[in-house]
Amino acid sequence: MTPRVTLLAGGVGGAKLAEGLAAVCSPERLSIIGNVADDQEFHGLWVSPDIDTLTYSLANLIDRRQGWGLADESHRVLAGLERLGCDTWMSLGDRDMATHIFRTQLRHQGVRPSAIAQRIAESLGVDIDLLLPTDDPLQTTVKTEQGWLAFQEYFVRERCRPEVLEVRFEGAATARPTSEALAAIETAEVLLIAPSNPVVSIAPILAVPGIRRAIETSRATRVAVSPLIGGRTVKGPADRMLTAMGYPCSNLGVAESYAGLLDGLVIDASDRDDRTALEAEGVTVLTTDTLMTDAEEKARLAGETLAFAGALRREEVEA
Amino acid sequence: MTPRVTLLAGGVGGAKLAEGLAAVCSPERLSIIGNVADDQEFHGLWVSPDIDTLTYSLANLIDRRQGWGLADESHRVLAGLERLGCDTWMSLGDRDMATHIFRTQLRHQGVRPSAIAQRIAESLGVDIDLLLPTDDPLQTTVKTEQGWLAFQEYFVRERCRPEVLEVRFEGAATARPTSEALAAIETAEVLLIAPSNPVVSIAPILAVPGIRRAIETSRATRVAVSPLIGGRTVKGPADRMLTAMGYPCSNLGVAESYAGLLDGLVIDASDRDDRTALEAEGVTVLTTDTLMTDAEEKARLAGETLAFAGALRREEVEA
Repeated sequence: MTPRVTLLAGGVGGAKLAEGLAAVCSPERLSIIGNVADDQEFHGLWVSPDIDTLTYSLANLIDRRQGWGLADESHRVLAGLERLGCDTWMSLGDRDMATHIFRTQLRHQGVRPSAIAQRIAESLGVDIDLLLPTDDPLQTTVKTEQGWLAFQEYFVRERCRPEVLEVRFEGAATARPTSEALAAIETAEVLLIAPSNPVVSIAPILAVPGIRRAIETSRATRVAVSPLIGGRTVKGPADRMLTAMGYPCSNLGVAESYAGLLDGLVIDASDRDDRTALEAEGVTVLTTDTLMTDAEEKARLAGETLAFAGALRREEVEA
Repeated sequence: MTPRVTLLAGGVGGAKLAEGLAAVCSPERLSIIGNVADDQEFHGLWVSPDIDTLTYSLANLIDRRQGWGLADESHRVLAGLERLGCDTWMSLGDRDMATHIFRTQLRHQGVRPSAIAQRIAESLGVDIDLLLPTDDPLQTTVKTEQGWLAFQEYFVRERCRPEVLEVRFEGAATARPTSEALAAIETAEVLLIAPSNPVVSIAPILAVPGIRRAIETSRATRVAVSPLIGGRTVKGPADRMLTAMGYPCSNLGVAESYAGLLDGLVIDASDRDDRTALEAEGVTVLTTDTLMTDAEEKARLAGETLAFAGALRREEVEA
C-alpha cells in the first residue's frame, strides 16, 4: 500500500508532480494543498490560477502546450470585454470563464472557498482531495520600482520583468488554516513540497499561521523537489526571486528557504555538483531527472521521490 | 427636422421599431425607454434580456435569425457551467456573456443600472439614448398553476406553456423613475409605444410610479403600434396574455390596455376589420403592413408611424 502522501504545490511545476503522484498513489491516500495567494478578481470574477492549474491538470483538461488554462480554448468573452473597454491583459478562456463564474457565484453565496475548489475538482472528475491552506483572504503582493503590485500584475501584466524588492502575503497574520489542510499535514506519512516557486508559491502556504508549525512537528518524512534545473527555473522567476530574497540562487538557496522543513531534497542531475554542499548542510539528496516532460516522466519522478522518502524513513527508524 | 421622439419598447418587436426609427430620426432627437422587469440573475450574473435585444439590434450585432442574442455566437461558457452542475436552460452565448459580466461588475461597484446600459450601448456603437424606466428593482412575476414564476422561468424555461393567471411587477410600488426617462417623456413631441407585449413589456414600464402620469399629461402625440397581426402575435404570448388579463384578444384589447395613453393606433392591414370598432371607441387608426421583415420595412413603418403622428398633431392644432 502507498503511504499517506500530502503535497504542497504551486502552479505549473506543482501540477506536474501532482499528476505524477496521482498516477502512482491511491487517490484516497493523496492530498494536495494548493496556493491561493495568487488569486485575483478580474471583471468582478474570482480567478484562482494555481488552484485551476492543479484542477485542470489532474482532470487531464489542461492545455499541455502552455501548462495552464484549458485545452481547446477560445477567447470570445475576453474579446467582448475588451470591446466594452475592459483591461484584458489577463488571458481568460471561454471554457475557463465558466469556472470563474461558478466560483464567484458560490463565493457570493457564502460557500467556503475550499468547498468550492473541491466541488469544481469533483465536477471535473478529480478524485483526489484538493485542499486550500486557508479560506481567508491571502494575497501575494510584490514590491518593485513601480511600487507594490498584485501578484498577477507582476507575473502576467509585467511578465516578471520588474526587479522584485520585497514580497508580502497580505492577510497572512490573520488567516486561519483550514482544518482539512492541517489534518492532511498531521496524518501524512510523506510530506512533499513540489518543484514550485519557493518564494511565491510555497511560502504563502507556509505563511498561514499553524501550517509551518504543523510541518515542523510532523512525524512524516519531508521531501522537497527542487524547481531548479541547471541552476535555473524551467519557467517563471523563482531563480531571480530567491536571489532577491537573499538566498543563493542554487539548490542551497532552495534548501535554506525550506530550513527546518526538510529531511531530503530531490535535485536535477544537471545540478549534481550541489550535492556535496547540501549534504554538508545535513540535507540528504536524491539526484535524478526532474524535468517531467510527459506523463511517464511525471510518474517516474513521483515514484522515485516516494521511494527516496521511504528509504529516509527506514534510515530514521533504524537510527 | 424630425420631431423629438421617445419610444417605449420591449424586446424583439420593440427593437425592430427602434431600428426603423434610428434609420429615419436624428439620433440626438430619439430616446428609447426599455423594459427591465424581465431581468434575472443567472450564475450570479445580471442578465437584462430586453435591454440587450435593443442594444444589440441598434448596434447591428443581433442574431437576425432568432431576433435576440449576438450573431456568430458560441456557447462554450454555458457548456462549462453545465459540466459544473448548473442549470443552463437560459441560453447565454459567449460573446453575450461579456455583457453580463461587465454589467454585473459595475452593478457590484454601485454604478446606476441606467448608466451601465448607456455605457454598454455606447461601447457597442449605439448613438441613441437608451434609457431605463427605473434604477430600482422591478421584476415581472407570473402566476401559473405551478405557482409564481420569475418571468424568464415562464418565458424561456417553461416556453410560455403554462396558463397565466396573474401578472405582478414586484417592486413597482417603491420604484422611482429615472430622471432621464421622465425627461424623455416630458420633452417628446411624439411618444410611441412599440409593437411589444402590452402585458409584460410595456405595462412594467408604465407601472413605475410617475411614468404613466407623465405620458397621460404629455403634450406629445401618442401613438402605439399594435403587436397583433391577423389577431395574433408574431412571436411570444401577448395574445394569450391579453385574454388572461381580461382584454379582448384583438386590437380593441390592445387599445383598451393603453386606455388614456393613446391618440392613435397603427394596426396591421390583415386586421383592417378592427378599424371601425376602434374608431367607435375614439381611437384614430393607421392601417399598414407592420411585420417589419427587413431594414427597409422597419424604416418604412417608422416613417409611416411618424407621418401618422404628425397628421394627428396637425389635426389637434387645427381643432
